[in-house]
Amino acid sequence: MKNRYKRKGSSGWFLKSLILLLSCLLATVTFEKLSAQKRDLMVRIAKLRIDSAQLENYKVALKEHAETAVRVEPGVLTLYAVYEKNNPTHVTVFEIYASEQAYNAHLQTAHFKKYKTTTRDMVQSLELVETVPIALESKTANWKKPTGN
Amino acid sequence: MKNRYKRKGSSGWFLKSLILLLSCLLATVTFEKLSAQKRDLMVRIAKLRIDSAQLENYKVALKEHAETAVRVEPGVLTLYAVYEKNNPTHVTVFEIYASEQAYNAHLQTAHFKKYKTTTRDMVQSLELVETVPIALESKTANWKKPTGN
Repeated sequence: MKNRYKRKGSSGWFLKSLILLLSCLLATVTFEKLSAQKRDLMVRIAKLRIDSAQLENYKVALKEHAETAVRVEPGVLTLYAVYEKNNPTHVTVFEIYASEQAYNAHLQTAHFKKYKTTTRDMVQSLELVETVPIALESKTANWKKPTGN
Repeated sequence: MKNRYKRKGSSGWFLKSLILLLSCLLATVTFEKLSAQKRDLMVRIAKLRIDSAQLENYKVALKEHAETAVRVEPGVLTLYAVYEKNNPTHVTVFEIYASEQAYNAHLQTAHFKKYKTTTRDMVQSLELVETVPIALESKTANWKKPTGN
């Protein structure tokens, strides 16, 4: 009996240490991952002026492109595209990429090249504004369309 | 035997109809909900110019406000706040509210009033641009900070 208790105590100690070690490891990995993700994010605002005669076609092309990019590219995290109520030809896209590498990979995709070719004559001007996040707060609840990931 | 088969057939027909009816009901409710959510969304861009001497304090206040609003208010869906790399006093906030009612409720909260009071002398100009969504695509994966919902 004594031996059995001894063994049980020893095994409990070993298990506790193992669990503690694994928890520390997991916490470190998670922290590193989150820090890396936060550090590497590329957040940008694209400001476009669209030819009013081609506005409806442009919206269709942009919508299709945004849906495809966020669905198929792991590094394209957010593409929020809107037009101004009072100036419908003024379009803004709020873009979040996982990293600069993810953005460069995005530029090489077939869907991005198709979007650029299709909209070449629709876009009258394009300004790309590089930004730094202050806060990126969002519900992750499913208020978004089910086509999103 | 004949009766049993009859009963079985009748029960199968009833079950199939019930499942079909429930599916239709579920599809209708889901469609209505999604349409309502999409129709009611209020999406806006706030453009601010901040006093350069108070920029760091402003960022702290804005970050705290955004975190609180998205965490505690069911109708504040997204607050993405950034500053321009080349013009750090130029701040943009991309805002999504569940509805105009949700936005009006937001204006009455203690944290919003606190933010407005704290930042009154830091904000040199504020332009609110009402927009209409073309595409609101975003991963819902957990790349965001764990403080978000």
